[in-house]
Amino acid sequence: MLKGGVCVDFASCFPIWDKLTKDQQDLLLSRAEKRSVKAGTVLHNGNLDCLGLLVICSGQLRVYTLSSEGREVTLYRLFERDICLFSASCVMPNIQFEVIVEAEKDSAFWILPSCLFKAMMEESAVVANYANQLISSRFSEVMWLMEQIMWKSFDKRLAAFLLEESQLEGTSVLKITHEKIANHMGTAREVVTRMLRYFQNEGSVRLTRGTVEILDEKALQQLAQ
Amino acid sequence: MLKGGVCVDFASCFPIWDKLTKDQQDLLLSRAEKRSVKAGTVLHNGNLDCLGLLVICSGQLRVYTLSSEGREVTLYRLFERDICLFSASCVMPNIQFEVIVEAEKDSAFWILPSCLFKAMMEESAVVANYANQLISSRFSEVMWLMEQIMWKSFDKRLAAFLLEESQLEGTSVLKITHEKIANHMGTAREVVTRMLRYFQNEGSVRLTRGTVEILDEKALQQLAQ
Repeated sequence: MLKGGVCVDFASCFPIWDKLTKDQQDLLLSRAEKRSVKAGTVLHNGNLDCLGLLVICSGQLRVYTLSSEGREVTLYRLFERDICLFSASCVMPNIQFEVIVEAEKDSAFWILPSCLFKAMMEESAVVANYANQLISSRFSEVMWLMEQIMWKSFDKRLAAFLLEESQLEGTSVLKITHEKIANHMGTAREVVTRMLRYFQNEGSVRLTRGTVEILDEKALQQLAQ
Repeated sequence: MLKGGVCVDFASCFPIWDKLTKDQQDLLLSRAEKRSVKAGTVLHNGNLDCLGLLVICSGQLRVYTLSSEGREVTLYRLFERDICLFSASCVMPNIQFEVIVEAEKDSAFWILPSCLFKAMMEESAVVANYANQLISSRFSEVMWLMEQIMWKSFDKRLAAFLLEESQLEGTSVLKITHEKIANHMGTAREVVTRMLRYFQNEGSVRLTRGTVEILDEKALQQLAQ
């Protein structure tokens, strides 16, 4: 499962491991549960469940929100060694919004049950401050996104999105539909299609059924900046 | 200063007072400093300063961000008994965005120095969890705003803004320029003027130089929903 990964045991993946007491470490080891899921699995859906804190071993998770009309926007993604906090959002009483966490690729992770995490947070300043750091990081990512949406025009955002996808997938030929791009960016499919055609006319991308090929990375980078 | 206010001493204003040890309470009382400022005073400006945690006694603070082109958007406001966390953002290492905190009305507050707050947070799970609650609340407000911006059309947002202002000021005649509304909402003045004129044509508001008078509150409420 984890071949090639550096994150082979729980202790080496959990960032504050060395700051915990021996009792806390033992408790975590006895309760942390390893799980693998297929791409497309929904791990957390608003307030419907509260799986626990996820420590990601491999794969890729996507955290997104949904409007009442069913439009999506990707808030951020999580990778190996990242911690997914919102799958334990029930332990944070003042979080008054709902997100969905979905495995975007086949993924493996450890689960720390919410009740365990909550109890540790309440008794330990180290754990509480760590939760604080996590939520501050996610808050920063959402602020970044909001600034993108508010201040950046759609061509810049789309160029940045294509470059990020290309880097994540390690290829310049992206297998992604316009519908899917629209979901990531919180816009309508038509808006994406129109802008991609504009990029194609400029020679920056080539469009085929189900793929977007990046032809001129430099041009997209200049646009994205 | 505080006549009429319920928040007359520090202990009764600081939400977790009863959960603190006697030593912590004494430390806070000896270090908390009372200050009053005039409307328009900038209390925190990005990473330039780190005044401390503010416990608001009276008045109104506005927390906003600024784009590189100087456009503003109001993230949220703080009132009596609210705590301003971002004026102590230096104690939160993972906050990677900058906000500005400004007194929108004449305001009075206690200041807890950042270094004191940081030290208490590091040693006390109670204080750390409280910081956690604060940041979760602010995060929720920003998510709400982002959803407004993403999914709600501008007419609905503007109607909601006018109603909120009217409630805050306790009057249906708002003394506010189109420029100022645009700054709150992160848009251009022309966009605000165009929509206000549309509202005026519909009979919902009356515009005079420097004021927006709400004539049909019900119509705005229906629109805002």
